Amino acid sequence: MQAEELTIDEVVARLRRLPFEDAACARIDHHRQLRCGFGEVIFCESKTIGQVREIFGKLGQTGQNVLATRATAEMAAAVIEDFPKAAFCQTARTITLRQTPVEPAGHVAIVAAGTSDLPVAEEARVTAEIMGAVVSTHYDCGVAGLHRLLAETDELRQARAIVAVAGMEGALASVVGGLVAVPVIAVPTSVGYGASFGGVAALLAMLNSCASGVSVVNIDNGFAGGYNAALINRLPTAGG
Amino acid sequence: MQAEELTIDEVVARLRRLPFEDAACARIDHHRQLRCGFGEVIFCESKTIGQVREIFGKLGQTGQNVLATRATAEMAAAVIEDFPKAAFCQTARTITLRQTPVEPAGHVAIVAAGTSDLPVAEEARVTAEIMGAVVSTHYDCGVAGLHRLLAETDELRQARAIVAVAGMEGALASVVGGLVAVPVIAVPTSVGYGASFGGVAALLAMLNSCASGVSVVNIDNGFAGGYNAALINRLPTAGG
Amino acid sequence: MQAEELTIDEVVARLRRLPFEDAACARIDHHRQLRCGFGEVIFCESKTIGQVREIFGKLGQTGQNVLATRATAEMAAAVIEDFPKAAFCQTARTITLRQTPVEPAGHVAIVAAGTSDLPVAEEARVTAEIMGAVVSTHYDCGVAGLHRLLAETDELRQARAIVAVAGMEGALASVVGGLVAVPVIAVPTSVGYGASFGGVAALLAMLNSCASGVSVVNIDNGFAGGYNAALINRLPTAGG
Amino acid sequence: MQAEELTIDEVVARLRRLPFEDAACARIDHHRQLRCGFGEVIFCESKTIGQVREIFGKLGQTGQNVLATRATAEMAAAVIEDFPKAAFCQTARTITLRQTPVEPAGHVAIVAAGTSDLPVAEEARVTAEIMGAVVSTHYDCGVAGLHRLLAETDELRQARAIVAVAGMEGALASVVGGLVAVPVIAVPTSVGYGASFGGVAALLAMLNSCASGVSVVNIDNGFAGGYNAALINRLPTAGG
Amino acid sequence: MQAEELTIDEVVARLRRLPFEDAACARIDHHRQLRCGFGEVIFCESKTIGQVREIFGKLGQTGQNVLATRATAEMAAAVIEDFPKAAFCQTARTITLRQTPVEPAGHVAIVAAGTSDLPVAEEARVTAEIMGAVVSTHYDCGVAGLHRLLAETDELRQARAIVAVAGMEGALASVVGGLVAVPVIAVPTSVGYGASFGGVAALLAMLNSCASGVSVVNIDNGFAGGYNAALINRLPTAGG
Amino acid sequence: MQAEELTIDEVVARLRRLPFEDAACARIDHHRQLRCGFGEVIFCESKTIGQVREIFGKLGQTGQNVLATRATAEMAAAVIEDFPKAAFCQTARTITLRQTPVEPAGHVAIVAAGTSDLPVAEEARVTAEIMGAVVSTHYDCGVAGLHRLLAETDELRQARAIVAVAGMEGALASVVGGLVAVPVIAVPTSVGYGASFGGVAALLAMLNSCASGVSVVNIDNGFAGGYNAALINRLPTAGG
Amino acid sequence: MQAEELTIDEVVARLRRLPFEDAACARIDHHRQLRCGFGEVIFCESKTIGQVREIFGKLGQTGQNVLATRATAEMAAAVIEDFPKAAFCQTARTITLRQTPVEPAGHVAIVAAGTSDLPVAEEARVTAEIMGAVVSTHYDCGVAGLHRLLAETDELRQARAIVAVAGMEGALASVVGGLVAVPVIAVPTSVGYGASFGGVAALLAMLNSCASGVSVVNIDNGFAGGYNAALINRLPTAGG
Amino acid sequence: MQAEELTIDEVVARLRRLPFEDAACARIDHHRQLRCGFGEVIFCESKTIGQVREIFGKLGQTGQNVLATRATAEMAAAVIEDFPKAAFCQTARTITLRQTPVEPAGHVAIVAAGTSDLPVAEEARVTAEIMGAVVSTHYDCGVAGLHRLLAETDELRQARAIVAVAGMEGALASVVGGLVAVPVIAVPTSVGYGASFGGVAALLAMLNSCASGVSVVNIDNGFAGGYNAALINRLPTAGG
Repeated sequence: MQAEELTIDEVVARLRRLPFEDAACARIDHHRQLRCGFGEVIFCESKTIGQVREIFGKLGQTGQNVLATRATAEMAAAVIEDFPKAAFCQTARTITLRQTPVEPAGHVAIVAAGTSDLPVAEEARVTAEIMGAVVSTHYDCGVAGLHRLLAETDELRQARAIVAVAGMEGALASVVGGLVAVPVIAVPTSVGYGASFGGVAALLAMLNSCASGVSVVNIDNGFAGGYNAALINRLPTAGG
Repeated sequence: MQAEELTIDEVVARLRRLPFEDAACARIDHHRQLRCGFGEVIFCESKTIGQVREIFGKLGQTGQNVLATRATAEMAAAVIEDFPKAAFCQTARTITLRQTPVEPAGHVAIVAAGTSDLPVAEEARVTAEIMGAVVSTHYDCGVAGLHRLLAETDELRQARAIVAVAGMEGALASVVGGLVAVPVIAVPTSVGYGASFGGVAALLAMLNSCASGVSVVNIDNGFAGGYNAALINRLPTAGG
Repeated sequence: MQAEELTIDEVVARLRRLPFEDAACARIDHHRQLRCGFGEVIFCESKTIGQVREIFGKLGQTGQNVLATRATAEMAAAVIEDFPKAAFCQTARTITLRQTPVEPAGHVAIVAAGTSDLPVAEEARVTAEIMGAVVSTHYDCGVAGLHRLLAETDELRQARAIVAVAGMEGALASVVGGLVAVPVIAVPTSVGYGASFGGVAALLAMLNSCASGVSVVNIDNGFAGGYNAALINRLPTAGG
Repeated sequence: MQAEELTIDEVVARLRRLPFEDAACARIDHHRQLRCGFGEVIFCESKTIGQVREIFGKLGQTGQNVLATRATAEMAAAVIEDFPKAAFCQTARTITLRQTPVEPAGHVAIVAAGTSDLPVAEEARVTAEIMGAVVSTHYDCGVAGLHRLLAETDELRQARAIVAVAGMEGALASVVGGLVAVPVIAVPTSVGYGASFGGVAALLAMLNSCASGVSVVNIDNGFAGGYNAALINRLPTAGG
Repeated sequence: MQAEELTIDEVVARLRRLPFEDAACARIDHHRQLRCGFGEVIFCESKTIGQVREIFGKLGQTGQNVLATRATAEMAAAVIEDFPKAAFCQTARTITLRQTPVEPAGHVAIVAAGTSDLPVAEEARVTAEIMGAVVSTHYDCGVAGLHRLLAETDELRQARAIVAVAGMEGALASVVGGLVAVPVIAVPTSVGYGASFGGVAALLAMLNSCASGVSVVNIDNGFAGGYNAALINRLPTAGG
Repeated sequence: MQAEELTIDEVVARLRRLPFEDAACARIDHHRQLRCGFGEVIFCESKTIGQVREIFGKLGQTGQNVLATRATAEMAAAVIEDFPKAAFCQTARTITLRQTPVEPAGHVAIVAAGTSDLPVAEEARVTAEIMGAVVSTHYDCGVAGLHRLLAETDELRQARAIVAVAGMEGALASVVGGLVAVPVIAVPTSVGYGASFGGVAALLAMLNSCASGVSVVNIDNGFAGGYNAALINRLPTAGG
Repeated sequence: MQAEELTIDEVVARLRRLPFEDAACARIDHHRQLRCGFGEVIFCESKTIGQVREIFGKLGQTGQNVLATRATAEMAAAVIEDFPKAAFCQTARTITLRQTPVEPAGHVAIVAAGTSDLPVAEEARVTAEIMGAVVSTHYDCGVAGLHRLLAETDELRQARAIVAVAGMEGALASVVGGLVAVPVIAVPTSVGYGASFGGVAALLAMLNSCASGVSVVNIDNGFAGGYNAALINRLPTAGG
Repeated sequence: MQAEELTIDEVVARLRRLPFEDAACARIDHHRQLRCGFGEVIFCESKTIGQVREIFGKLGQTGQNVLATRATAEMAAAVIEDFPKAAFCQTARTITLRQTPVEPAGHVAIVAAGTSDLPVAEEARVTAEIMGAVVSTHYDCGVAGLHRLLAETDELRQARAIVAVAGMEGALASVVGGLVAVPVIAVPTSVGYGASFGGVAALLAMLNSCASGVSVVNIDNGFAGGYNAALINRLPTAGG
């Protein structure tokens, strides 16, 4: 049990350093930047403009880079009053504030099947970029016009991680996964006729991909797609 | 109302000609050959050896060609005692009896993704052949090794109808559908890990195909795949 | 391996001829007309009026016939400004532009169960017509009033392909499939009380049809119904 | 509140007369015959031979007619040792004991789609008969061969209640419901290929029937089909 | 085959008498009154005011009683302009026109669990009444306050058929079914918190009722509940 | 942040005391007895006889009372070799070892709907008893024979917690919940015909109970039912 | 049978004391306070302002404490006109009227994962408080920032019952359940991206909790969470 | 179009180099090692011993390392006859053949919740190891005994990728994801009581993880977990 107690001491040391802060509407986890590699991200969908503004303010005051997803133009306007350098991307529905320069490095490729998948793909792009990745985008590459995708193969192969965004039957993830030797993060979207069931068809297809290097995140969750790709992208060398 | 009554007269005339026969265990629809273009097919799965033998006998006595699906070797042995010319295909699980020569014509292509999909693909092949189609098979063409499928494109394009058989994510149907100008009948199979849910993942993917010329039949229903392709294959010329 | 390399050469030759074009919002697959037998179709549902107008413009400029589905009256008005010959069908929610004369040929029959299924049935009709089919329509033929359907049997039997459109329990597909010898494309609709689950009841019924010559497309996807029927309709003679 | 207390007195009077009996493995509800019109029925599926024998014995000793469903041949053998007049129906998987003569009356019709639906249909028949109904059976009437069903229409119309048993797409219930003016009890069966999902496809189809006079019981529950039809069948005249 | 042909003759005779009429938006099945015991009912939910008015007019002109369900106040106003005797029930969302006097007879009881189930229960009541039933209503009898239901038991037992309307866990159907000897038509409603899944919880509960005399119709389909109960209610005496 | 650090100190103090032990096949959480009020329970279903014997041994050596669920007779025999005082209950499929005397206190009542629910109900009983509860059982109280349940009401009302075990439509939980003022733990079972979907129907019914004091555990999880009831049962007085 | 009749007499005595009252829109169960320990609660979601006002009035006139859930500000304004002491909590969407002083006792802890779960958590708090519990709240304790939850462990351990409210993956219930020795009532919320399916993901996770002392209520049903916790909280001592 | 043709030339060059080989039962994709970074893996589940032996032989003859998953002891025995250096891992159900030395590098950590998850976790371990990763395993770390997991945090943080394997509620993935800054591949397992629905509960929980760095593979697919982690692990440095 001796060894175990030492381990627990290390746990304690780690826990002792974890700060958080009680704001009016949320406990902000200031320690997440250190623990998980990126600060807390604001998911705006079920929050009021006032809540978004307050939480964004708390995070922005620390000087770190801030990302808010699923934001409306009104939320962005309120935030930009406080942080004039903050930027709103309408397609991606994101607010970003870059205060700490990050030198873009590595390469994340984002492939999307159709025009309707763009909001999700763009959310992935903005996320990966603020986390330090160089991002290339490859849109409108649905498998029904395979030559459009094949034309991108060389560039895809040079990425360190690929985000594959598709609705309908979600076949894009399997086809991309069969062409490359890097991890593919598949993002199903809710695009499709009735029996897509809000993205379930694409989700199941991606989970059942016959290509081995594919893992999947939640429906329409472009943020998670970009986040996981960026995590992979910034890993140091295996030998180091 | 006058016109309607005439139409009803025609209905009557048609109905009057429809024969059926009460066997011990089933009413055999002898008229189906004329009405639907192929005689009644025996689905053996929930029948006893005795029932299969009796129904096969009734159909075989008419001199027409007979097809039984989901048959066991034991059922086949019993049938072959009565009809020595009947043949059993172990992979396809079919018993066929060819009594009326049919000149193979047209071209049905059957594409399958993996080795595990073979029983379903072979059921489609046997069905299409007994209905008069020339059949070409293209197996082990899963989209994770796209070059294997692309090597078949020329032959696929020469078919009049294509049966695409795949489990897992079922992407094969969309990729094939995007390469050809003929109708694709997609057959989802129950092959896959847990979240394939017995073929539901492939079924949904095929129903949501981003390629337009794809229609779908039931899970593991190779018979329906071959049947629909053969129906299409034997259509007379559009002008004729 | 020699033979394989030749095949790959053919693949190359084919791929080399595939053109596409990067528009502002989409890569237009100009080659699809040749590859799949009909040009790219514009699915308007998640696009802006501006996007529809731009893509329609790119396709229309090539001189080919153009089809846009799930269009609104506002989208149609914008398109018609550019192409005064374009036409909007309110029930079908389609915009069509006929620039290349196609001689109607063959025969596609469209059967629908109830009044509520009309938008889907009409989308199928418009699609089949612009792809060159002669189309006959047979609406309000639900199986609860079987005599209305039986009165149509003769005409249905003369078609080369039938589109069966029904919501609720979707029994229409099976009943029609049992009466004819041509392929039936079943289109489930989202019409029904609570346990229709947005068309799932009809979808499952059609996939489980006890009639053999039935294949199925996505819920409310009248376009796919018409497209598949038209593909079948224009097949050349089996012997040719 | 005065009126309410009188009602409660009546409740009390009723409750006071309700007998039950604690056997070793079950409390037998001897009063059900009076309250619900038929005694407790033994569902054998999850019981041991000993339990079936004991409960059957308790019920049989009262002199009433007894029905056990989902019984095995072994259970039947044990019961028949105690009650030599008891009868086992292998297809229906029922044990019946007729001790109190019931004059068959009225007319319940049982329609079934295919050979595989027979066990469920026969369970309905045995149930309706022991509850006093005259029963006519109409088997192998699937809608893919509509003329077989139409030939039965006259007899179906003379029934007081109809049980419609079908698997696969379950269309039989709607077609029958559209032909008659009496209540139809639909029994979905678990017969079918993959996407029948153990009878869910037929269940949903029957719940969504476009014919108004259809109500539905559980999958493969032939007992409930026969029970409800027999309840309806023995209702006295509306005026009486 | 002789006997069969005679039967077909009878089918013909029956089919020949089936009239229908092509209106602008629907084929009206004027024969349904004879065939199924009540004329075509107008389901207004997906129809325009103009369509409802036109179809109601065609049916009303025949002099029969007319029922329209899921109607809005605006639809009712339009219909009442044409038929001043038509009546709108706001809770039930029905329009009724009584032109042919029907002497109320028999007894249908309608039991409902909570206030939120009233629209469905009232739709059942209006339907059963226009089909000739005497109807008693027993509302707010949820099983959480069992004494409220027990107080109604005597009257429930005197009905010829009972409609049990409940959302949430739908236990009402089983409890009522255990207290009476008449058929219970269970109508699940979409009332409930999240995991009621729009009525699925109640639907499944009712299909799995441990009381034998319960059959089920679609979620929120009060019309079908009333229709089936009224069909049962008006059956002549079993001996007659 | 000062206050927070103190709290973390307390966390540390607590974590430091948590012992566990690496056995060959599992890490045994010896601290659970203190932390959660009962030691680790062995779920035998996916373990080998050897694994069960080893883990049971480790737990038994501490002198505490031990419970193993989903055990087979073979597992029990192996355990009893090591601990002759251990007892096997065949219906409940449990092995229990009582080494530390616990004075039974309080009152947990277990109500079950039918004979088939007994294994689950008995698992709940054994669990509650070894955790120190006095348990009364009330079996075969399905709501279709309501008087059997009403006869138990007085005793149910005297319990501190009730476990309600039912399959099929699971109405028992709601009816019991409406009769008492103590918490009801509902345990759905997988007993039922097809559309019970392995207990889903009962699970949903119980989650949607119209009685307020009902909470639910997993399908067939009698252990969790007994465990939660026993946790509640042994709570000290509210004032204390 | 003698003993049984005595029991029935007790049933009668109990039933005779149960009063209810027929209001215009509902039968109010005045006896529930005695039978279940708290009066009827008004679920406002599908009621009109007038209905809420009337029912609230009937309950308020008795002098007992009243709770209405899922109320709007407009409903609250109407009620407060009649009962100026009534209070509206906007986050919880509750109206409360405290007329009978209840001395807060015991301790119910409410833990919530994120800001979006607050309405559900607050509904639980208001419910538990009006039922007499001292309540502590612990919000924004999602498991992704585990130190925020661990900081609360001491206080959680002192509660008599814990309500754990979480959407997304619902892991909070398991983690809390593993840290304490008191019953945890888990409330899944509908918060989350696409594949949360309106709370199903959290619901299933909670039902499958690997911690034994967790039971679950319906999605977003904060009322049931608070109600069950309060029922447990006020139980007298086990020995008493 | 010029640029596009150049790209196509590159596609051609790439396609020309893709070899495959027609074995009796499968087309072996010898090029996969180059294209995807690891050779074809043999999924044995639906193959015969003979097929496994033949495909293993074809792959083994190339001199590369070979992995077969879901193998039985019989399959392993057959393979080892041909390749005496091949090894069978019974828990992981894998056959491995190491012919090309790979220097283990990097660090993949595998965390599993319970004993029942071991087969899936071990399949992940074997896969990651043959793909060149140093692997540390952390088993029996379910969140109900949180201290067991916290004791592993330091080592988990040093990994380049983590595979989190859990059934039941799958909370492990979220808790691990909140503690580390590296990508977590979550593998749901089919371990659990009824409402785990064969792993669906864990799958949904993992897809909805509130921790951002989690992506998911198919149920019980330990191979995909190990494969994706190994792909990530061997990525070169971001700067390189």
